[in-house]
Amino acid sequence: MDTKQILQYARSWVLEAGEEIRTNINEPLQIDTKSTPDDLVTHMDQQTEKFFADKIRNQFPDHRIFSEEGMGDDISDLEGVVWIVDPIDGTMNFVHQQRNFAISIGVYEDGTGEIGLIYDVMNDVLYSAVKGEGAYKNGDRLPLLSTTEPLKRSIFSLNTTWLLEENRLVEASGIRELVKSLRSTRSYGSAALEFAFLAEGVLDGYVTMSLMPWDIAAGKVLVEEVGGVVTTGDNSPLSMMDRTSVCAARRNIHEETVENYINLKK
Amino acid sequence: MDTKQILQYARSWVLEAGEEIRTNINEPLQIDTKSTPDDLVTHMDQQTEKFFADKIRNQFPDHRIFSEEGMGDDISDLEGVVWIVDPIDGTMNFVHQQRNFAISIGVYEDGTGEIGLIYDVMNDVLYSAVKGEGAYKNGDRLPLLSTTEPLKRSIFSLNTTWLLEENRLVEASGIRELVKSLRSTRSYGSAALEFAFLAEGVLDGYVTMSLMPWDIAAGKVLVEEVGGVVTTGDNSPLSMMDRTSVCAARRNIHEETVENYINLKK
Repeated sequence: MDTKQILQYARSWVLEAGEEIRTNINEPLQIDTKSTPDDLVTHMDQQTEKFFADKIRNQFPDHRIFSEEGMGDDISDLEGVVWIVDPIDGTMNFVHQQRNFAISIGVYEDGTGEIGLIYDVMNDVLYSAVKGEGAYKNGDRLPLLSTTEPLKRSIFSLNTTWLLEENRLVEASGIRELVKSLRSTRSYGSAALEFAFLAEGVLDGYVTMSLMPWDIAAGKVLVEEVGGVVTTGDNSPLSMMDRTSVCAARRNIHEETVENYINLKK
Repeated sequence: MDTKQILQYARSWVLEAGEEIRTNINEPLQIDTKSTPDDLVTHMDQQTEKFFADKIRNQFPDHRIFSEEGMGDDISDLEGVVWIVDPIDGTMNFVHQQRNFAISIGVYEDGTGEIGLIYDVMNDVLYSAVKGEGAYKNGDRLPLLSTTEPLKRSIFSLNTTWLLEENRLVEASGIRELVKSLRSTRSYGSAALEFAFLAEGVLDGYVTMSLMPWDIAAGKVLVEEVGGVVTTGDNSPLSMMDRTSVCAARRNIHEETVENYINLKK
């Protein structure tokens, strides 16, 4: 694939879609729910996804689209070039806060992440990475992450959900031990932004139990380009096809985190 | 007190101090710890506090200063006019993230909060409120908070700390039930910003167990001016003299939160 050309198009479409969202941020939203009462979708998610699907199909008719709101292709493998698109990552923030959400686009070739773009729409900050060529924030190259700072001086993004016994995905006891081993935790409510903040060094790790490929695709490229490690909660490679747990962290604390603190429920 | 005049000075000093912090944000920090290895203070906290103390003493010699880093007065009551100052609220964010921290200034007269200013330094956003005259974000008046949205559609700021059995301040079981009753939780790591976000409607509540008066003084004025309620975790008035628990929330969900979910350990 022509990475440079694809990046150029992807970047310009992301900026255009973001501008459209900002322009309409105070308009009334049509809000629906999906799998649960807290799994939200709005007409802006759908409209933005359609914008990307139309652009990609027009410019790159042989590429396929794997996306959150169903306007993409019916994807059962990652052969060829696949755009993995979340038009609005952090829809609950979009609805409640009118900020702290992102457009997330990963472009994968035969299953390998080649391009990652995460656009913090309301702050007009674009995080971008190309495999092997580093990660950038608005054009400034992001430095490699520390490989020496210990867990006890680390801040992780970690939602309170995973400390509840009742959660069906991870042993809460281990996650509580993790909290005690960290300096502190934060939670921002957008997986794409949490990956971006990790890539920036604003967070040292991000642990969560239930993400879809479009939540991860761009962030994985970004974090790996600054030397971070992104795996499932049991230290396996991410599949990028199914719902998955995620542990993303700086290199010197990743293994310690998955081995000592994350026990997935089977 | 001449509220209008004090507000004018306070605002100009806050903006000036913020500009100074932004200018030096990439300079090396001298970082020390206070009560615990994670209780951080930097020379910028101290320098900024000194800036405010000098300005206030010069302009208002009969006012007193109650502040975090020890350059204020020895305060044992709130008689007269007292400036309650946190030069950098969210020092851990300041150190780790170079953003997501705030200058927080409350001006109290005989124990009543008359002025609250919270300055999100890196975003150049000033939240301000005068008792009885409403709250503002960069000059735009903030609307009153909803009094109808239920707890199950609310987002609270709540750190993972309070879900650990080992915490000495609150029964974790109740806080876990609270998490289950909410739509979701976030955690930003700056009390002042969490109050400001609540005043904006970006959060619906903020529950935490260990704040000092300078973490709260401005935020309380701000939240009350948009119709929110700010009490201790057991629904008592805040003392504004001692370390305290806090439950701040929209009016229609505040009592339900403190009564049903927050059980302070004695």
